Amino acid sequence: MTPDPVGDVERRLRAVEDELAIFRLIASYGPAVDTGTAGAVAGLWDEAGSYTFDTTTLTGADNVGDLVTSDEHQSYIAQGCAHILSLPRITLDGDQATAVNYSRLYRHDGTTWFVARVSANHWHLARAENGWAVLSRHNSLLNGAEAARALLQP
Amino acid sequence: MTPDPVGDVERRLRAVEDELAIFRLIASYGPAVDTGTAGAVAGLWDEAGSYTFDTTTLTGADNVGDLVTSDEHQSYIAQGCAHILSLPRITLDGDQATAVNYSRLYRHDGTTWFVARVSANHWHLARAENGWAVLSRHNSLLNGAEAARALLQP
Amino acid sequence: MTPDPVGDVERRLRAVEDELAIFRLIASYGPAVDTGTAGAVAGLWDEAGSYTFDTTTLTGADNVGDLVTSDEHQSYIAQGCAHILSLPRITLDGDQATAVNYSRLYRHDGTTWFVARVSANHWHLARAENGWAVLSRHNSLLNGAEAARALLQP
Repeated sequence: MTPDPVGDVERRLRAVEDELAIFRLIASYGPAVDTGTAGAVAGLWDEAGSYTFDTTTLTGADNVGDLVTSDEHQSYIAQGCAHILSLPRITLDGDQATAVNYSRLYRHDGTTWFVARVSANHWHLARAENGWAVLSRHNSLLNGAEAARALLQP
Repeated sequence: MTPDPVGDVERRLRAVEDELAIFRLIASYGPAVDTGTAGAVAGLWDEAGSYTFDTTTLTGADNVGDLVTSDEHQSYIAQGCAHILSLPRITLDGDQATAVNYSRLYRHDGTTWFVARVSANHWHLARAENGWAVLSRHNSLLNGAEAARALLQP
Repeated sequence: MTPDPVGDVERRLRAVEDELAIFRLIASYGPAVDTGTAGAVAGLWDEAGSYTFDTTTLTGADNVGDLVTSDEHQSYIAQGCAHILSLPRITLDGDQATAVNYSRLYRHDGTTWFVARVSANHWHLARAENGWAVLSRHNSLLNGAEAARALLQP
């Protein structure tokens, strides 16, 4: 075999770009839901992707996006809310990847902010034509239940 | 045209470095303000850059840095405070960039910590001689007002 | 000297990979402790590394990992807890690096979550055979004491 230094660098560079692209996807979720922009939320998911939180599973990017149109979500926005996701631990595997992180929902109550949700998140992602897309996201409250810890497993 | 694999790799690498440099700039803000280091805060801004929060706009890096010398800020430091910025969604555009993220101010009240501010942030940055610098930062409380949501637009 | 564009790119790429590897290490801490996985915590530290928090110093990766087996930590897990670390400011120096960031411990009290700790962190890391490892981590509560601000110095 002849050495291929440019090819090797290209492969490593692509891995770095992939990791940063997944950071960007995850950093885009909060602004999309906190502005109530259904299309921007849907645009993060694969067309057939799913989002499971608590005992609910939404399937299909459009259904995930429509979450922000619910009366409950709209009232959070009107009162002031922030869905903040932490730096993820990403594991790349070719054209797929997993990411594990935390999310918090801060809500304003007219005077101050309270921490309405603290959750574990496990993301399964795939390389799509334009960047990366969510195949599935599981979100579970860190309230002592085993389900949330299962999502965080090292 | 002849292929230029090294040139292509170099351009992609520079984009990756730019994104990490902006992460570093944003991760440097909290430590600078929570230690009350006016020079370090000013050093993140372009000489003519500005910082707008609530109804206040500070213009010029030195004026931004001097924010930490105010009695109010000094009392936060003395009591215990943390200005924590979330993973930003960065959009590079040559020698300029925008970043969108959240910030929270946690303050100690002698017994525990409370969430004193939860804000949306929109950063406009430019490549400077040594790294990147803030041209403008807008910060607005996520208390239900439209102004904050405007900063988060996807 | 002859130009060495591939060698130059390789060095820059390695710096980028190093920074992302340290992000990954730091993003792995929370999931390791919140699942009570002593081996995963220990695996982040150098065999002789240390972790100092408040007035306690644990020395040796296994002793750091065993922290999660304490009755106190186990009760936090059973009630629901999240150790969330912020985006670090990383400074690479060859085969060593420092990172500065914030950590928060959110705990569930049966109804909601409260912010039980807000701390400054200073990490000293070294390149190991497989990735990076923690030589020392210092963690100090941001309750107004000077010790925490010393860890955040710009």
